[in-house]
Amino acid sequence: MSLGSFVHDETPTAEVDRLEALHRGLADAVRSLVDATIRTTVAEDEVRAVQAEVEALTARLRAAELPGPAGVRYNSEGRSWSWGNAVVGQRNAVAVPMEVVHDSSGLVHADVVLGAAYEGPPGLVHGGVTALLLDHLMGETASGHRRVTFTGTLTLRYRRGTPLGPVRLEGRVVREEGRKVVVEATVADPDGVTVEAEGLFVVPRWAAGEEAERLIDALGE
Amino acid sequence: MSLGSFVHDETPTAEVDRLEALHRGLADAVRSLVDATIRTTVAEDEVRAVQAEVEALTARLRAAELPGPAGVRYNSEGRSWSWGNAVVGQRNAVAVPMEVVHDSSGLVHADVVLGAAYEGPPGLVHGGVTALLLDHLMGETASGHRRVTFTGTLTLRYRRGTPLGPVRLEGRVVREEGRKVVVEATVADPDGVTVEAEGLFVVPRWAAGEEAERLIDALGE
Repeated sequence: MSLGSFVHDETPTAEVDRLEALHRGLADAVRSLVDATIRTTVAEDEVRAVQAEVEALTARLRAAELPGPAGVRYNSEGRSWSWGNAVVGQRNAVAVPMEVVHDSSGLVHADVVLGAAYEGPPGLVHGGVTALLLDHLMGETASGHRRVTFTGTLTLRYRRGTPLGPVRLEGRVVREEGRKVVVEATVADPDGVTVEAEGLFVVPRWAAGEEAERLIDALGE
Repeated sequence: MSLGSFVHDETPTAEVDRLEALHRGLADAVRSLVDATIRTTVAEDEVRAVQAEVEALTARLRAAELPGPAGVRYNSEGRSWSWGNAVVGQRNAVAVPMEVVHDSSGLVHADVVLGAAYEGPPGLVHGGVTALLLDHLMGETASGHRRVTFTGTLTLRYRRGTPLGPVRLEGRVVREEGRKVVVEATVADPDGVTVEAEGLFVVPRWAAGEEAERLIDALGE
């Protein structure tokens, strides 16, 4: 698969929303199947039988498909969609998916529930999964729906394990200088902060001019 | 789901291997379904029909299942398995899954091919996915199949985007002091390094004594 670019796509927002809901239904079903695949204790013949049926369903979906990844699209109404995104992609069963909320005070947060598919040490969220979610939330914090940013550096301090279950992420821009944006963020379980992070995000040169305006909201990372 | 612990499980290694292969088959099939769910362009009725069938298969697997995550198990032969692990879990379709190789020189590496489910910016690996894979590889580098380690701090420097496709990760222990282990690692595409990382890993107090011996290889993170 090759390096793509942001694609201008004139599908009207209402139609994007409708298609997203349709495919979100399938992705949610596949996400539950992923969980069941990890946790099932049914008989071996049943595992084999289900595998054969999964393969048949996959073949049906592959009867017509994109030649590569889903990429990032945006229309003139300012709606963007990155349905394959590893963290927020509405068609991606690997994604939690995380919904990132930008509140009026500048705080950016997300509440997720992490199940069996995100485990590292027994009963705990994989440390790399908290890094994955933080990178995404911090990138969205840096870009703020106003500009495209890429991760420059990211530093994570793990204070203790994060139990599987409900997890809250929060991020905030703490400093800006030219094309550089510094973001601080945390991961917390119901008992408090488990991981702290600081990130330096960079607005790419190609997006620092008027291109940035055209790509409002088209934040693929 | 609650915080678990490493579980001593006297399933013989040969039987663990056999069961792993069986369930790996199902997980591979589900992984392909995840990819097809992102990329399919079949008609809407077909999407709905496949969703209904996926839900039916999930119900069949859930007829008998573990009450929570898979956890980490080990037997007296030194075989450990963490089938639900988010990076290396053989039953987890969210996982790449990554196979980590420890060579005799101390270099630890992994070759993976990242497809549509790991996308961030168009055509590129999500920056958080490289963080996820690095955290895991570096943790395994720190532990070296000889001890349990947890991530303390992790610093990632993104030099450029990593295209989807074949990716190589390499890690090496550069310093040790008491319970602290410092690891350096890189992510590279066929053209060279894209991400550099340094991590401080910590051997937990409870694992610094004889417990560590009992848990050889039981590296859940």
